[in-house]
Amino acid sequence: MYRDPVQSLEAPLLPSSATAMRPLRVGMIGIGTVGAGTFRVLARNQALIAARAGRGIKLVVVCARSLARAMSVVGKDVALTNDPMQVATHPDVDVLVEAAGGTAPARDWVLAAIRAGKHVVTANKALLAEHGNEIFAAARQHGVAVAYEGAVAVSIPIVKALREGLTANRIEWVAGIINGTTNFILSKMRDEGVGFAEALAQAQALGYAEADPTFDIEGLDAAHKISLLAANAFGMPVRFADAQVEGITTLQGLDVACAEQLGYRIKLLGVAKRRKHGDTDGKAEGKVEGVELRVQPALVPATHLLAHVNGSMNAVMVKGDASGVTMYYGAGAGSEQTASAVIADLVDVARLDGTHAAQRVPHLGFHPHAVDKQLAVLPRAAVHTRHYLRVPVHSAQQIEAVGAWLAAQHVPVLQVALAHDKALPPGSGPQVLVLTDAVAQATVDLAMHALAVHPAVAGPVVTLRVEVLA
Amino acid sequence: MYRDPVQSLEAPLLPSSATAMRPLRVGMIGIGTVGAGTFRVLARNQALIAARAGRGIKLVVVCARSLARAMSVVGKDVALTNDPMQVATHPDVDVLVEAAGGTAPARDWVLAAIRAGKHVVTANKALLAEHGNEIFAAARQHGVAVAYEGAVAVSIPIVKALREGLTANRIEWVAGIINGTTNFILSKMRDEGVGFAEALAQAQALGYAEADPTFDIEGLDAAHKISLLAANAFGMPVRFADAQVEGITTLQGLDVACAEQLGYRIKLLGVAKRRKHGDTDGKAEGKVEGVELRVQPALVPATHLLAHVNGSMNAVMVKGDASGVTMYYGAGAGSEQTASAVIADLVDVARLDGTHAAQRVPHLGFHPHAVDKQLAVLPRAAVHTRHYLRVPVHSAQQIEAVGAWLAAQHVPVLQVALAHDKALPPGSGPQVLVLTDAVAQATVDLAMHALAVHPAVAGPVVTLRVEVLA
Repeated sequence: MYRDPVQSLEAPLLPSSATAMRPLRVGMIGIGTVGAGTFRVLARNQALIAARAGRGIKLVVVCARSLARAMSVVGKDVALTNDPMQVATHPDVDVLVEAAGGTAPARDWVLAAIRAGKHVVTANKALLAEHGNEIFAAARQHGVAVAYEGAVAVSIPIVKALREGLTANRIEWVAGIINGTTNFILSKMRDEGVGFAEALAQAQALGYAEADPTFDIEGLDAAHKISLLAANAFGMPVRFADAQVEGITTLQGLDVACAEQLGYRIKLLGVAKRRKHGDTDGKAEGKVEGVELRVQPALVPATHLLAHVNGSMNAVMVKGDASGVTMYYGAGAGSEQTASAVIADLVDVARLDGTHAAQRVPHLGFHPHAVDKQLAVLPRAAVHTRHYLRVPVHSAQQIEAVGAWLAAQHVPVLQVALAHDKALPPGSGPQVLVLTDAVAQATVDLAMHALAVHPAVAGPVVTLRVEVLA
Repeated sequence: MYRDPVQSLEAPLLPSSATAMRPLRVGMIGIGTVGAGTFRVLARNQALIAARAGRGIKLVVVCARSLARAMSVVGKDVALTNDPMQVATHPDVDVLVEAAGGTAPARDWVLAAIRAGKHVVTANKALLAEHGNEIFAAARQHGVAVAYEGAVAVSIPIVKALREGLTANRIEWVAGIINGTTNFILSKMRDEGVGFAEALAQAQALGYAEADPTFDIEGLDAAHKISLLAANAFGMPVRFADAQVEGITTLQGLDVACAEQLGYRIKLLGVAKRRKHGDTDGKAEGKVEGVELRVQPALVPATHLLAHVNGSMNAVMVKGDASGVTMYYGAGAGSEQTASAVIADLVDVARLDGTHAAQRVPHLGFHPHAVDKQLAVLPRAAVHTRHYLRVPVHSAQQIEAVGAWLAAQHVPVLQVALAHDKALPPGSGPQVLVLTDAVAQATVDLAMHALAVHPAVAGPVVTLRVEVLA
């Protein structure tokens, strides 16, 4: 037993003890999945959250379309309104929680709150990917915080890890599985051998995909998130519009099976990587520096930790020059999982008095004067990765011809194999599988154009990126 | 291109702009692995760290035993001394980095620095596990921060995740692989089928284990760390002295192979779990609440993410009531990996002015008045987990007798199997393998006592815990 040291916890607190502070007063727009989860967790863990934050966190006003439905969630002790602007500028509100989603009106509410001197907490990745630069600039001018832990891989404190936990490091890359819907679909395709359409239907039936799943399956949601992570990792503005985005809608079960044969699994990855233009390993001197910012289905080695992130889970890996590789894993969606992040942001604000909150951690992790506006997203042609190619051929004997031809086109071939029969659907012709070393996308594109009319080739050639991430 | 929003990053800064602040001045005791790594990363990433912190971080004085050696590391621009107390109380020092290790003198230096109004950053887990309660109380009285991200799973910002990222949650458990040396040894034992002694010798030859590896292989290092994590997770004092600690020195290769046969891998886990005493699932009402705090080799399912954390890597899982399970993975040791955490702590201090640093995040994640001094560590007998048993028998026919006998002793048997020949070393007799459902350690201990003299039993029975962690 540690009697003495434990007793010394009774040491008198400083006079400025946080216990004497008034609660942090929260106004919320939207009481759907995120809003209701936030209310529920705040209520359930009220005492515990106050013990951590040093003061209470109190929901004082909610804006909802249906006041009756809102009251069924939050009860009678919270003021209700139909007018979002009333919450955004409410005199009794210290922090606005924007839980409505969407971009156009949410931008107006958030800017109004900022101009009224309110801190803002949001999990709205679309809003920040499209209007983040404007919103953060306004927040800086008005001395308030805009916190957004819930905008990326909800339950995982990855924004905090990048902005605060890894500040010693020059970040080399950030990459990960940051969309739960597509990871669920890809896990189904691999585990059950079903095609994309069937896996999507299952995801919709189970509530892992929305009725209109476009944002998820086309990779836009992941692109929103990787744009925010890249800004925090590299000290650049949010560059969502420049990201290269591919979804999984055209991914074939055949390629999932062929990847498996080669010892790989296919995951939809968001990747942000700092590189000297024209350099494959990030170490060339004297060239223009840029950032690869991209979302695409990619092969990862089956032994890699990311290959074992299944179902709707998310995981983000970060490579720092001092830390080496670290990884952050958790739920990528869900009501209380998002609430966990929203409330952590509220506690961060509560732990500071208002005048210091905005200054402590810059919105994008770097002080604004140090954000590099010249650091641009590299064009697609300049992206360097390993590649997987699947080449349908007329006869298995053509495997050597395909390999030799690719090598002659300056594609650095590492491995050539024939797809096993068990990977092929009934009636499929022979397929040559190729793994390359790192090569510029421009070189691959040129080779693909030429390969399309090569006499050995019996159908459309598929190329996918291979990510090593070590 | 985002011309308008990006241009708006030029918005004028607030007059209190952090750029105008003087550098944070650091004094360091010790310039060995941690100290030299910290100096190197601070120097290499100087501009980047200042861009993140809002001001420079400057090493001004170092205490070392050999001044010549210290100068060969830090050069001539840093003052040098042999006297640790001179650094701890130096008038030009804002923050002391304690990088010397050990407990007795380090405690004195840290307390002297606190009394002199300095913040303290340390990666010394032994110091904080043994003297943390006293040190944190002193820091509170003097209004300074004691930061220790590097004390647990060095490169992984797990202290920050618990104290700041997961503040919304009632934490149910924290568990993980938090000692790199033993994880390296266990990975070797599994991958190469070697015994403990040979794997240890390899670890020593490769620098993954020290000449005297006692602290690591006996589980004490992991116990230091899990005690700190438990305090931050549950709002309790640091209870290292009450932790139940088992190392891996008696672990047999035979059990690694038998676990593999059953679909499990053996990892040295630190586990902290909040429970109602006498309750197996943490949900019983009206009983005394306590915390399981323990380190031991345990079976984890081969499909579990922790089973894929290999070599000297670390990973910590946290289950929160809102977040669900999250995991944090990275290097558990290393010079610059530790520096990554030490410097992140320095940036945290630099991002606040001195008067606010101590108050922002309480040292153990909860405000001192809310730290529950009654929350005790549950005795070993009350720990509830699944178990693995290996029972050497005279004849394979006795498998049914062993299973039936255990069930009669109130051991909830889930599975009984014979070890395959390929799991057994040459000349071994038959081995009955048993997996149980969750059961109190007291029940298992009683059954083991009786089983030892059971006529079917041909040798010492081995029991290991099985952790599900979902």
